[in-house]
Amino acid sequence: MKNKGLLIVISGPSGAGKGTVYNEVLIRRPEIERSISVTTRAPRKGEVDGIHYFFKTEEEYQRMIANGEFLETAEVYNNFYGTPKAPVYEKLALGHDVMFEIDTLGAKQIKRMYPEAVSIFIIPPSYETLEKRLRLRGTDSEETIKRRLSMAKSELAKYKQFDYIVFNDDLEGAIARVLSIIEAEKCKMDRNEEIVNEYLATMPSKKK
Amino acid sequence: MKNKGLLIVISGPSGAGKGTVYNEVLIRRPEIERSISVTTRAPRKGEVDGIHYFFKTEEEYQRMIANGEFLETAEVYNNFYGTPKAPVYEKLALGHDVMFEIDTLGAKQIKRMYPEAVSIFIIPPSYETLEKRLRLRGTDSEETIKRRLSMAKSELAKYKQFDYIVFNDDLEGAIARVLSIIEAEKCKMDRNEEIVNEYLATMPSKKK
Repeated sequence: MKNKGLLIVISGPSGAGKGTVYNEVLIRRPEIERSISVTTRAPRKGEVDGIHYFFKTEEEYQRMIANGEFLETAEVYNNFYGTPKAPVYEKLALGHDVMFEIDTLGAKQIKRMYPEAVSIFIIPPSYETLEKRLRLRGTDSEETIKRRLSMAKSELAKYKQFDYIVFNDDLEGAIARVLSIIEAEKCKMDRNEEIVNEYLATMPSKKK
Repeated sequence: MKNKGLLIVISGPSGAGKGTVYNEVLIRRPEIERSISVTTRAPRKGEVDGIHYFFKTEEEYQRMIANGEFLETAEVYNNFYGTPKAPVYEKLALGHDVMFEIDTLGAKQIKRMYPEAVSIFIIPPSYETLEKRLRLRGTDSEETIKRRLSMAKSELAKYKQFDYIVFNDDLEGAIARVLSIIEAEKCKMDRNEEIVNEYLATMPSKKK
């Protein structure tokens, strides 16, 4: 008997380092699968349909929305991006874990659609660190940095929708905490009921 | 700002190896405190009051019960054993974690008194292993082994009262899983609300 896989959602405000944590966790746990998004934007050079994205026309995309085929969907600069349910649910049913890196809005949609999802909010260790990280990118104007800081604050304020908070004070520590959360979630009682019941059934009964 | 400590309860049926897991976790995480029990039994040679146990008369013990001073209490062979609330709550308030090794009945009492307790049920990987472990002790009669196996089964059937199930298939794996559970519990959103709120308060507000 195999347990269902975990659906793990990694989110966090801009400058939290969630992308790095996400990639490093995948390197250390290569058996965890990524989800592949559907998009209406045109493929860029080298992008392969079904590997980097599922490319769809806007008409196809709208039909998928109408059919309730998405775990989450968003419009960004006139293009749509979304996570299709079917391939994710198939992987979970096979006992594979699937991990997403997504913004707080997407994370909220996923949790509503699939409440068993394990959602982790990566946050920068302090305001100073966040500001420094955003400035270190070097490419943004002062105005853009100010806007990003203010956005980061309103993103941070959404922490209550998440199951776990991971301070990204040092990268290795943050990665270890995410790995611990995944390990611990697999030990949750309700994820092991079936296995323990099968186990109990193999034991000779009292009255024998 | 420091978070409150975790109250961690380790339990499991006879033959699960919960005592070994408990001790090994304490070796690896020496900052986790043990709780000291109160007992009415006479001190054995070398036992020090306040270190191994708090030794009390039966009258004193009964007064403690009447005053609701116990997290859990049990009678074993005409002696009483119990966990006093006050020293445990003091440690938790200081941000120290406290860990208990206790039977399923004690674990249930603690969880009722202190619902934030994190309860972990260590179980043997299979019936065969359990039987082998009980036989390996070598000192018990066939009848005692049969009785222990049947007790283990009814203990196992209480798994639903626990937050986590840890299969003790290999000791190192079981220890790692318990450590992960402790780490993950510290990342739970509701245990970090105060810290994140303080953090948010340090950030300049949007309207500035």
